[in-house]
Amino acid sequence: MKHAYIPRTTTYNLNPGEELNDLRMSDEVRPLYEHVKKFIRETVDPMSVEFMRLGESKKDRWSFTPEQLAVLQKAKDKAKEEGLWNFFLPDAETGEGLKNLDYAYIAVELAKNPMASETMNCSAPDTGNMEVLERVGTKAQKEKWLKPLLAGEIRSAYAMTEPNVASSDAKNISTTAKLVGDEWVINGEKYYISGAGDPRCKIMIVMVKTNPDAPPSKQQSQILVPIDTPGVEILGPMHVFGHDHAPRGHMHLRFNNCRVPKENMLLGEGRGFEISQVRLGPGRIHHCMRTIGKAEKALDLMVQRGLTREAFGKKIAHLGGNMQIIAQARCEIEAMRLMVLKAAKAMDVLGNKEARIWVSMVKAMVPERTCKIIDQAIQMHGATGISHWSPLGEMYQDVRHLRFADGPDEVHWMVVGRHELSMP
Amino acid sequence: MKHAYIPRTTTYNLNPGEELNDLRMSDEVRPLYEHVKKFIRETVDPMSVEFMRLGESKKDRWSFTPEQLAVLQKAKDKAKEEGLWNFFLPDAETGEGLKNLDYAYIAVELAKNPMASETMNCSAPDTGNMEVLERVGTKAQKEKWLKPLLAGEIRSAYAMTEPNVASSDAKNISTTAKLVGDEWVINGEKYYISGAGDPRCKIMIVMVKTNPDAPPSKQQSQILVPIDTPGVEILGPMHVFGHDHAPRGHMHLRFNNCRVPKENMLLGEGRGFEISQVRLGPGRIHHCMRTIGKAEKALDLMVQRGLTREAFGKKIAHLGGNMQIIAQARCEIEAMRLMVLKAAKAMDVLGNKEARIWVSMVKAMVPERTCKIIDQAIQMHGATGISHWSPLGEMYQDVRHLRFADGPDEVHWMVVGRHELSMP
Amino acid sequence: MKHAYIPRTTTYNLNPGEELNDLRMSDEVRPLYEHVKKFIRETVDPMSVEFMRLGESKKDRWSFTPEQLAVLQKAKDKAKEEGLWNFFLPDAETGEGLKNLDYAYIAVELAKNPMASETMNCSAPDTGNMEVLERVGTKAQKEKWLKPLLAGEIRSAYAMTEPNVASSDAKNISTTAKLVGDEWVINGEKYYISGAGDPRCKIMIVMVKTNPDAPPSKQQSQILVPIDTPGVEILGPMHVFGHDHAPRGHMHLRFNNCRVPKENMLLGEGRGFEISQVRLGPGRIHHCMRTIGKAEKALDLMVQRGLTREAFGKKIAHLGGNMQIIAQARCEIEAMRLMVLKAAKAMDVLGNKEARIWVSMVKAMVPERTCKIIDQAIQMHGATGISHWSPLGEMYQDVRHLRFADGPDEVHWMVVGRHELSMP
Amino acid sequence: MKHAYIPRTTTYNLNPGEELNDLRMSDEVRPLYEHVKKFIRETVDPMSVEFMRLGESKKDRWSFTPEQLAVLQKAKDKAKEEGLWNFFLPDAETGEGLKNLDYAYIAVELAKNPMASETMNCSAPDTGNMEVLERVGTKAQKEKWLKPLLAGEIRSAYAMTEPNVASSDAKNISTTAKLVGDEWVINGEKYYISGAGDPRCKIMIVMVKTNPDAPPSKQQSQILVPIDTPGVEILGPMHVFGHDHAPRGHMHLRFNNCRVPKENMLLGEGRGFEISQVRLGPGRIHHCMRTIGKAEKALDLMVQRGLTREAFGKKIAHLGGNMQIIAQARCEIEAMRLMVLKAAKAMDVLGNKEARIWVSMVKAMVPERTCKIIDQAIQMHGATGISHWSPLGEMYQDVRHLRFADGPDEVHWMVVGRHELSMP
Repeated sequence: MKHAYIPRTTTYNLNPGEELNDLRMSDEVRPLYEHVKKFIRETVDPMSVEFMRLGESKKDRWSFTPEQLAVLQKAKDKAKEEGLWNFFLPDAETGEGLKNLDYAYIAVELAKNPMASETMNCSAPDTGNMEVLERVGTKAQKEKWLKPLLAGEIRSAYAMTEPNVASSDAKNISTTAKLVGDEWVINGEKYYISGAGDPRCKIMIVMVKTNPDAPPSKQQSQILVPIDTPGVEILGPMHVFGHDHAPRGHMHLRFNNCRVPKENMLLGEGRGFEISQVRLGPGRIHHCMRTIGKAEKALDLMVQRGLTREAFGKKIAHLGGNMQIIAQARCEIEAMRLMVLKAAKAMDVLGNKEARIWVSMVKAMVPERTCKIIDQAIQMHGATGISHWSPLGEMYQDVRHLRFADGPDEVHWMVVGRHELSMP
Repeated sequence: MKHAYIPRTTTYNLNPGEELNDLRMSDEVRPLYEHVKKFIRETVDPMSVEFMRLGESKKDRWSFTPEQLAVLQKAKDKAKEEGLWNFFLPDAETGEGLKNLDYAYIAVELAKNPMASETMNCSAPDTGNMEVLERVGTKAQKEKWLKPLLAGEIRSAYAMTEPNVASSDAKNISTTAKLVGDEWVINGEKYYISGAGDPRCKIMIVMVKTNPDAPPSKQQSQILVPIDTPGVEILGPMHVFGHDHAPRGHMHLRFNNCRVPKENMLLGEGRGFEISQVRLGPGRIHHCMRTIGKAEKALDLMVQRGLTREAFGKKIAHLGGNMQIIAQARCEIEAMRLMVLKAAKAMDVLGNKEARIWVSMVKAMVPERTCKIIDQAIQMHGATGISHWSPLGEMYQDVRHLRFADGPDEVHWMVVGRHELSMP
Repeated sequence: MKHAYIPRTTTYNLNPGEELNDLRMSDEVRPLYEHVKKFIRETVDPMSVEFMRLGESKKDRWSFTPEQLAVLQKAKDKAKEEGLWNFFLPDAETGEGLKNLDYAYIAVELAKNPMASETMNCSAPDTGNMEVLERVGTKAQKEKWLKPLLAGEIRSAYAMTEPNVASSDAKNISTTAKLVGDEWVINGEKYYISGAGDPRCKIMIVMVKTNPDAPPSKQQSQILVPIDTPGVEILGPMHVFGHDHAPRGHMHLRFNNCRVPKENMLLGEGRGFEISQVRLGPGRIHHCMRTIGKAEKALDLMVQRGLTREAFGKKIAHLGGNMQIIAQARCEIEAMRLMVLKAAKAMDVLGNKEARIWVSMVKAMVPERTCKIIDQAIQMHGATGISHWSPLGEMYQDVRHLRFADGPDEVHWMVVGRHELSMP
Repeated sequence: MKHAYIPRTTTYNLNPGEELNDLRMSDEVRPLYEHVKKFIRETVDPMSVEFMRLGESKKDRWSFTPEQLAVLQKAKDKAKEEGLWNFFLPDAETGEGLKNLDYAYIAVELAKNPMASETMNCSAPDTGNMEVLERVGTKAQKEKWLKPLLAGEIRSAYAMTEPNVASSDAKNISTTAKLVGDEWVINGEKYYISGAGDPRCKIMIVMVKTNPDAPPSKQQSQILVPIDTPGVEILGPMHVFGHDHAPRGHMHLRFNNCRVPKENMLLGEGRGFEISQVRLGPGRIHHCMRTIGKAEKALDLMVQRGLTREAFGKKIAHLGGNMQIIAQARCEIEAMRLMVLKAAKAMDVLGNKEARIWVSMVKAMVPERTCKIIDQAIQMHGATGISHWSPLGEMYQDVRHLRFADGPDEVHWMVVGRHELSMP
């Protein structure tokens, strides 16, 4: 009657000596990493202070002033000059680029100044869009859109999420594209389209349903839609806990019989899911590394507050369970860091498809736990923690938002759970 | 060596037959309760829609339009006419008023429309301020400030929290008032002063330190400061997760050698803590009942979303652990409701002082658990949950804020824990 | 686009003035309640110490010594003499008995000495079995089994759970009874049959499948099986975390072509579910009240330990987050107590069927939270907490077991969730 | 007024390219690792089945039968012959041995059969005791005790924890040793002394207070006490949730004027803490790796149960939130594994002292989270989960016990928190 215990073979119990467990940054990337840190410290940090100052008096919240753009351009020119430009991008000929593990270490640094990524032309969603164009774009598509994106002259958006369906199940996508003559006619609604409010945003990649009768994973396509195409209607910015994030915005869009040339289709009809594989893995890892940067910052703020405020005759950090909260935050951060590094390494070693379980684990784990850490930091700050005097409130909103972006936690747990149940 | 187990006598294990366990609303209050519900449904609900509509096009975010004020006034007149006016207030002669338990049931209803309380002249912090003036005000103070407050002609603020100290420990209060001749000269800073931005706000009750050398609980006083007193500087609104709550605002104030007549002192020098006892117990209970109203609304929204959206071939409510989340939310809500009713009853039967452990329990329990329920409702809504299309984001912010207001959770747990350790 | 919020009508938002919110014990039960407390203190407590002492040197773990039985009998005689006997039982003629709410208060007291219930002939599963016989038994069944049970001369068991199927879904019951001539022939296996190891246990009520082709809720029957029936094989005691609970035991039984007369069927073929309704509601409430008694004891022990041990120069209760843990335990206990009282009252006022949501809520809530409180008490005791020097280890095991008994937590949450989703 | 955010330099943000992030097993240890796995599979697994079978009919629970000892000896001889013997031990001359990281990988395998460690003479507490004797023992001490331990002829115990004080604060140690003539006279009580009940246990290392007037960290000493020394009184086995773990036992001991020669002192008077540094780091890491092995087993059992039982028309693994529970368990296990590997590597690279923060993190993190995973596995098994039919109940008890052993969680969080607060 005793339970017959037969241990399963898991993909997690790999050979302990193998490369997958080596989480070091590559030696050859170290100079780039140091260069990026130096550039942020010396160029981006002062530039961003200036940029904010110049924006303080502007009238139109949904634009940048010429002075702002000039300051930003100068920093971009400097980055380009120093070779800190587009370094996220795989080499066109060889397909080789920065390894995910190496980029993960760099992403933590990029997260430390909100303008750092853009200055080095490495900001989302442009990175994903450029990578897609690089890998699957036609020569003409590259000439028209990839070139100015690589030069940092325009910006772009990625339109997937829809307001009227549970788009966490991509089969639900309801925006349609129908071929009429030589043009695709697009109709539907999208929302939370980050960056579509930026006056410099010129092109969108839009997820549409083209083949409703094909098998579920062959119904979707991705297509290029210039933002000034007639019929593209920007209905307004979506808020995140009351923020509209002007002037970049998370926009709500409607496509009203919006026509684009047949050639704007990416890769081919019904291949939208294939393209998603290219972009989502790395994007999720980068989100997670940036989030860990935020968790670290929240812990730093918690400690600083805990050591500078007093109540009931003690420093707050020494009151009640606060020291244990601080210790557990540190432990969570280190555990999250190792998991993200491992997921990045798994992508490098096993490929995006095999590594998807690792990616889903960190995508479900990191934002939720970081929300908790930020919330505890807020609590240790009292009302100041949710005020505009502290960055914690905005950090919380950003990270809370991540628990839906690129798939809600629940969908990622489902991916992990299904795999676990299918292991022999 | 066996542990000698000696059960303690607790104040919680009271005689099971006694009144404290009767959580029914009084028969005599039932008509008022029904009247309030009807008034909200028939008068406040349509008025508030009109009020919002009239405010949409206004230029100055920090004012109301005359049209808005007229609509509101009409509803207030109707309430007064029907006798739904100031019903929170104890009778001046007898000290008798609505019991806390009865008011708790009504507070749930008031919470269902954000304008309901004001329409019936029962909104915070005016209620607390009026109660204080009624109980401890001099005849002149009552004539000058209580009268127009009771008539709903002006509004008021309560200034306790300070930005530069951990004011959860009230001994830390650093705003000073010094008697110079016949005037109190006030200096210091306060923040998160709700309602101080309202153009109709005319008077503040300010917590100050007058007797730094007295024993800790005798150092503070509460004093009346008209908001137009020279030296009162409104530095700006504090944000709550990016919201400024214009036009009422949670203001940041500075007192610069601000002079008020000697007669503005309430009750007497060094009696600030005594006054706090009057106002804080009921205020906390009302907060908690309103919060339960929000938890119920979050659960309703969760259920509605869960039954109307589909993913992976199922209604969301039936996916994964969602049904259990819904069930546990219901259970938490009912547990919270009973605890708040019990705390209210304890105040009625035992008095505010004896009941303070119950009040601290619910003040620490209710906002934290409600935050969790709202957060789960948000997650079930996807990105819409944090957008301006759903009330959930704003509800989260309000309830999160409550975890500091009137003492952070940690201080309330400390009160409960200390009592537990001191029981024989 | 704003979410149209339509509040649902819930069965929880009942009229606030109604009886359901009166959680006081009935005046007429108060003398019984006081009498029970006095009897436990004066008679049961010393008797149980004596009983344990007499058992220390016994050879056969699966029996009681004649001396033990004599001591117990004396206490039972005294209880009977004082009228503290079978008071759980509804009146045969009127169907009236103690209200669930009143019994709930008494159950807390009964829980304080593990022998208290038996001494007053109120111990599980005899109470449930007697109630079933009283309500649905034939005259002959009552004469043969109810009479000696009421007299405290024999004990009984209730056999529902099976080892080979998920019996939380009662449709899975696989023990069969087939009518062959004038006899039911029973085959199958049952486990965790509490009390079936007691040498005084003479009769079992067994849940069997008699009508596999009927609709799911009409397939089961309950039948009386004397424990000495040929074919009843006791395979051994089931352990709970290594305990076998000798001499009463949670037995593992097999029925091998076990024959009982046709007349042993209770109520009628296919009416097994109906009978369950009679017994399970009150049984679950009693479990929960006894569990709250254990949570209180765990908190008492936590406080005593916290105030008598020192480390790092402080009493343990004042170290780190311990005071908050203690405060939160108190708050949970009071919330659980109110919920159980409300569920008991709901059974009294609404009937078992309508009240089942309340019962499921407390059955899922109380054991899980009490496990956590006991676990925290263990942690505050160090290794002593899990040793035989402290009652905490055994308490943990008992309460952990309750998270499956009478339906696992998950099934109860499902009941609550389904109801929530079906409310208009 | 904006918060000035100055990131702290942390010891956690080390150079990303450095060795500390390389968590691979050493190439040179791979053959040993494979050998150990093969030996467990081919020799230990069948031997342990035989050993259990031989023990089934034994009369004295506190002994082994000669047949049992013969079977075990045969396996030990085989291990010695194959060179799988004492491999935990550093080389006497060079101080070099297996790196902690390498041993961590092997410890997971050793955890898979409860007799594996002993068969290869690598079982606790002998490993720690041998390491201490090797490092600090005199020639005579080594000859007398280390030699037979290394040969696997005797076993040993380590006596630190005391029943009457909070010994998590080592300054509280109350067992005394006083030098009287040429002998140390020892008095006091110890409990939870694992293995002291084993008939083969001959020697104990005992933590005593020798210098009560010295600074706190110089008051303790460690001393060798043969278990047959007059005055050593074994009072009985301590239980863990009702288990006594015969015949090895966690014993309760009393030292009554127990005399040992002056030469039995280890390293020197007042140097007890120094010795602790030698043994505790690796011991804690080994505990944690074994615990992860248990978490994996619990997850395997959860999956197997989930895929073989059905209720409500579905496999249990697909009911409610179960798939998410399974996914989160996998994620926790992988996070714990990486943290333990990192802590082991930190010990190798930074030394035990610098790595202590990492060790405290995993010691506080791993047992608590594993308890939760085992508890969830129990819940998915229904009552079988806590019965003797499943290993889960015993696994829970062992891991729960670990939350006190070698310092309770709270003390480890305190170590981590203090370090965090002291970082610049």
